[in-house]
Amino acid sequence: MPDPDQNPSPEELGAASPPAVVLFSGGLDSSTVLAIALEEGFQPIPVTFLYGQNHAIEVEAADRVAKSLRVVPPLKLELPFGQIGGSSLLGEGAIPKEPEGGAGSGEIPSTYVPARNLTFLSFAIGIAEARGARDIFIGVNALDYSGYPDCRPQFIDAFVRAANLGTRDGSTAEEPWWRIHTPLIELTKAQIITRGTALGVDYSETISCYDPTSAGQACGVCDSCGLRRRGFEDAEIPDPTRYV
Amino acid sequence: MPDPDQNPSPEELGAASPPAVVLFSGGLDSSTVLAIALEEGFQPIPVTFLYGQNHAIEVEAADRVAKSLRVVPPLKLELPFGQIGGSSLLGEGAIPKEPEGGAGSGEIPSTYVPARNLTFLSFAIGIAEARGARDIFIGVNALDYSGYPDCRPQFIDAFVRAANLGTRDGSTAEEPWWRIHTPLIELTKAQIITRGTALGVDYSETISCYDPTSAGQACGVCDSCGLRRRGFEDAEIPDPTRYV
Repeated sequence: MPDPDQNPSPEELGAASPPAVVLFSGGLDSSTVLAIALEEGFQPIPVTFLYGQNHAIEVEAADRVAKSLRVVPPLKLELPFGQIGGSSLLGEGAIPKEPEGGAGSGEIPSTYVPARNLTFLSFAIGIAEARGARDIFIGVNALDYSGYPDCRPQFIDAFVRAANLGTRDGSTAEEPWWRIHTPLIELTKAQIITRGTALGVDYSETISCYDPTSAGQACGVCDSCGLRRRGFEDAEIPDPTRYV
Repeated sequence: MPDPDQNPSPEELGAASPPAVVLFSGGLDSSTVLAIALEEGFQPIPVTFLYGQNHAIEVEAADRVAKSLRVVPPLKLELPFGQIGGSSLLGEGAIPKEPEGGAGSGEIPSTYVPARNLTFLSFAIGIAEARGARDIFIGVNALDYSGYPDCRPQFIDAFVRAANLGTRDGSTAEEPWWRIHTPLIELTKAQIITRGTALGVDYSETISCYDPTSAGQACGVCDSCGLRRRGFEDAEIPDPTRYV
């Protein structure tokens, strides 16, 4: 019998917390998602994809945020999106300044990366299956977002169905298996910032900019910087971002 | 007016042939698929994934087969499956000898790689979108196969739906966009070999073995070797495989 007066050891706590793969770039959204996964009692397996530009800066931010949330360092996976191309985010053409596309405009901006979330989620499923996890967290957002089709709930739902049919765990389970958590999907940027601030996320460590300097300063003029800046304004929380 | 007596130039022919991404490992099945894509009038973009063991041998085979079919050299993409694990094909445990799992046994063998075709197809969609292609070929087979859930038609159908919702081309098209061709899905291994032989595939260049020697000889005892060997026997075509 365990002694009820004795606190559980970290190992016991760890065993009690189900593992969850968290797609984690070190940006504002995914850092908030990491904090939410923790709060919901999961043991996060953060995964950071290196797939184009600004590797070093983003990886450093991801490591710092994970450390400040007391989570294991992110698993870093290098993906060959540079050989695929088709996006201004991968160096083809300039990063657009606002306004271009964005939610409600009906246009998909040039920063769209072909099949990015399809690929990221596929790796997340593979990692989860290999490590005995069933839960995946992703910071997609269908409200204050950049107009990307792979951030919409109907895409996530269809993906889960494909993953259930195309994996060992999914195809042998008696119930729909994979759970993809999208805790930000219906939040505004201001609500995301308010939630993360309450959970102790240090947003000064996070980088959202599509085109940061080598010192990690945000450009302040790209679509992602604009969404972030207005989010802090609307949330009435001081913006700790270091702009150029 | 073009002169009807003059043959079209390669450029004209090339422009007339729609591009198609062909998932191509240099093995028996995908080499047959590459020949089928050519025969159907597509201009193949062969893609070879490097994701675990035997890189050099498989890549050499893929290059040789592409050359013998007069197709451009495969695009080679390195994927970090080694960091994901969860498969005997990635070095975790021994490659099983026959019989283990296989079609009809109801068991998924240890050579299953978590989320492999989910990931491969996601990259194929990204490449197709970046290059203006709409068609993708994959050599999955639901008959003489190894029992992998990601080789079944219901998985492919669900994946196409997710890809239509999660990409720019798919979400903005007025009709279902992506076409995933699975020309082997209902063929026996013998029928695949008969078809490929008629199309001029040189199977002596292809490697199917899960555990080949560094000289490219097949082990002859793994699940994949067994399926292949029986295929040649059933097709009554001499087996050109170099066994140990």
